[in-house]
Amino acid sequence: MVCELSRCDIYFYYQKISFFLNLRHAKSIERLQFPDKDKEKFEPINPPFVGMYVCGPTVYSDVHLGNVRTFLSFDIIYRYLRHLGYKVRYVRNITDVGHLESDADEGEDKISKKAKLENLEPMEIVQRYANDFHRVMSMFNILDPDIEPSAIGHIQEQIQMIETLMAKGLAYEVNGSVYFDVAKYNQTEKYGVLSGRVLEELQTGSRQLDGQEEKRNSVDFALWKNAGTAHIMRWKSPWGMGFPGWHLECSVMSSKYLGETFDIHGGGMDLKFPHHECEIAQSVGAHGKQPVKYWLHTNMLTVNGQKMSKSLGNSFLPHQLVTGSHPLLSEPYSPMTVRFFMLQSHYSSTLDFSNDALKAAAKGYKKIINGLVLAKKLQFAHDESISIDAGAMAQIDGIIDNCYRAINDDFNTAKTIAQLFNLLKK
Amino acid sequence: MVCELSRCDIYFYYQKISFFLNLRHAKSIERLQFPDKDKEKFEPINPPFVGMYVCGPTVYSDVHLGNVRTFLSFDIIYRYLRHLGYKVRYVRNITDVGHLESDADEGEDKISKKAKLENLEPMEIVQRYANDFHRVMSMFNILDPDIEPSAIGHIQEQIQMIETLMAKGLAYEVNGSVYFDVAKYNQTEKYGVLSGRVLEELQTGSRQLDGQEEKRNSVDFALWKNAGTAHIMRWKSPWGMGFPGWHLECSVMSSKYLGETFDIHGGGMDLKFPHHECEIAQSVGAHGKQPVKYWLHTNMLTVNGQKMSKSLGNSFLPHQLVTGSHPLLSEPYSPMTVRFFMLQSHYSSTLDFSNDALKAAAKGYKKIINGLVLAKKLQFAHDESISIDAGAMAQIDGIIDNCYRAINDDFNTAKTIAQLFNLLKK
Repeated sequence: MVCELSRCDIYFYYQKISFFLNLRHAKSIERLQFPDKDKEKFEPINPPFVGMYVCGPTVYSDVHLGNVRTFLSFDIIYRYLRHLGYKVRYVRNITDVGHLESDADEGEDKISKKAKLENLEPMEIVQRYANDFHRVMSMFNILDPDIEPSAIGHIQEQIQMIETLMAKGLAYEVNGSVYFDVAKYNQTEKYGVLSGRVLEELQTGSRQLDGQEEKRNSVDFALWKNAGTAHIMRWKSPWGMGFPGWHLECSVMSSKYLGETFDIHGGGMDLKFPHHECEIAQSVGAHGKQPVKYWLHTNMLTVNGQKMSKSLGNSFLPHQLVTGSHPLLSEPYSPMTVRFFMLQSHYSSTLDFSNDALKAAAKGYKKIINGLVLAKKLQFAHDESISIDAGAMAQIDGIIDNCYRAINDDFNTAKTIAQLFNLLKK
Repeated sequence: MVCELSRCDIYFYYQKISFFLNLRHAKSIERLQFPDKDKEKFEPINPPFVGMYVCGPTVYSDVHLGNVRTFLSFDIIYRYLRHLGYKVRYVRNITDVGHLESDADEGEDKISKKAKLENLEPMEIVQRYANDFHRVMSMFNILDPDIEPSAIGHIQEQIQMIETLMAKGLAYEVNGSVYFDVAKYNQTEKYGVLSGRVLEELQTGSRQLDGQEEKRNSVDFALWKNAGTAHIMRWKSPWGMGFPGWHLECSVMSSKYLGETFDIHGGGMDLKFPHHECEIAQSVGAHGKQPVKYWLHTNMLTVNGQKMSKSLGNSFLPHQLVTGSHPLLSEPYSPMTVRFFMLQSHYSSTLDFSNDALKAAAKGYKKIINGLVLAKKLQFAHDESISIDAGAMAQIDGIIDNCYRAINDDFNTAKTIAQLFNLLKK
């Protein structure tokens, strides 16, 4: 029931907030700023088109709150860019194969492992958790992407990219597996541009792990993994039966649907290294150019100041927030409260969950909604007796300008919401 | 809002109806009957497992009511088999490539055509209409299948099946396209077993169509179609760039997820020929055995006695039924009314839509719900003063037996609902 009611809330909220955002259409789309260390002006490669790729979930378990925050942040970016008049193609993938338990190309495929545990076909796991993911996205009123491709749907394209990388001498085969040769790549390009890592340090710092002996170098990463008959999820390739490496799908699907260089690539901060670094290496290696103009990463969640993690027992799931069914939650919160709460922080800052903060968000959200209802009434009341003087109108205009300025500054929803509160006072 | 309210209705209805169905667990799972001309007893190949494959939508336009009826019929079958204790794996595919405008392997791919019309990437069309399809399924409270594979997700497996058929001499290549050789197949097997068609008559009856000259025989069908650079949706194959034929995906995906022979295959009656006939030929050709034990087909819709068709202007969409926004609809109907209305006919009969019939269904549905509310109250009222005599209890037991008998008779929901009305009288 909480969900059902909140759907109404959502609809209501969005009608209202969009009314506000539409009070004036953006005066200039050049005001949009993008940051990366130093902020840079946003200039799409091929305006008015914008290509945006966001790393989606690996569908082997319940979607966690960190995912919700990431996809909510990009939902705002997607909505705002469209509001500004851009024609956005938003691609968010579903990882249904290749994501191993450890970043070092070790351990089982997460989906295969879960399938064995639950005695199901891996595709049943994929289906169950993809459905669950979509339901959670819908609960938080996060728009669907324009294309939601999956790794399994692009096996052939992934094999082709591996062949290209091998032809360029950037990948090598060992026992039916293929690895990306990071040292070779680093001879002409720079590995680590995004995360600021230095290859030499990575090499010194890495332990020699089991199953790593096939690699020429511990920082090399799998493009294709050999898979014996015990594996259910495996496909034919020039190197025998196997499955694609996790990093590969994103390079393949982003370039297929957005071109070899596109505007925005996003994801959680935990993906910056090694996932996005490997994506860059693959794409630069295969296409000879940087794949992405603007990289955006969302920051982590904390609970009462502590890192949110399963082992600490402070990690609650989206549905627990909404039903209040977790020891750390004093009450259930509506999805719109959670959405509003998350937007009160900038996407690149850590976000701390606490009952006090959530309760304050519920109050703030209600205030905004009440204000919007009033504003709507005023707008439609053609009552001559209500006169707004020119000075007040100018002040309102100024605040609306500030709203745009705030959101144009690296999608700063925190500042934008603060401006909305100023607007309420008027 | 109609949808939102109806979600509550749905939940309510299902809780209630399941209470009834659960009054007693089925006494015997052998009572289930399957028909095909003469009815046969349902005996799963590997009990308690049941594999069920239903041809899903081609996601290039709004889902039509006929689809809703088909998937609703199989929703009941899925729910009922699970109610009986079977472990059902339900696979329903998404066709995202290969479905051409004409059954004779002619015309454009439906999705590519729509993509050109709307100036979008084909995968954007796929995403949009797949999302829409899922929303409509959810509106009518139709459960998700366990696996929902797509044709694009199984290009490699499709190529492999073609290679198998070629190796067996049942397929031939012409100009980068590959066709199934029906006459060759018919030498050892019988083409047309499902639909009762006779190959010789088909050959005489078929016109010589443009683009058919590549085929040895007009009844041959495409397994792979050559595609030039103008095509966006094309993949590498041993026969050059192209895309798979429409019939192939179902043979490939059903055998991948359910085995070479599985229990139930369903779909709309319009798929019986040529689609399902071609599926049988492909699977028998490749695996040497019949793929399906029980074939089930849902019948067509009519409106006020006339065939429902776009050209007659009497074809309304699911959302139009629910909003009442079609000249032929005198009022909006709740999705639960539509669901109830559809279940008042047997799935293999034609179903006629009219305002009178829909209004009657709304009344009948309300009656059942009221009765269920009352029954629930009685069940929980531990009031000694209410005594039900043994005779009445026996009568109720008898009717419940009749309910099972009705649904066991080829999932006859029409008779089952009639029995529920008898139950109400008690």
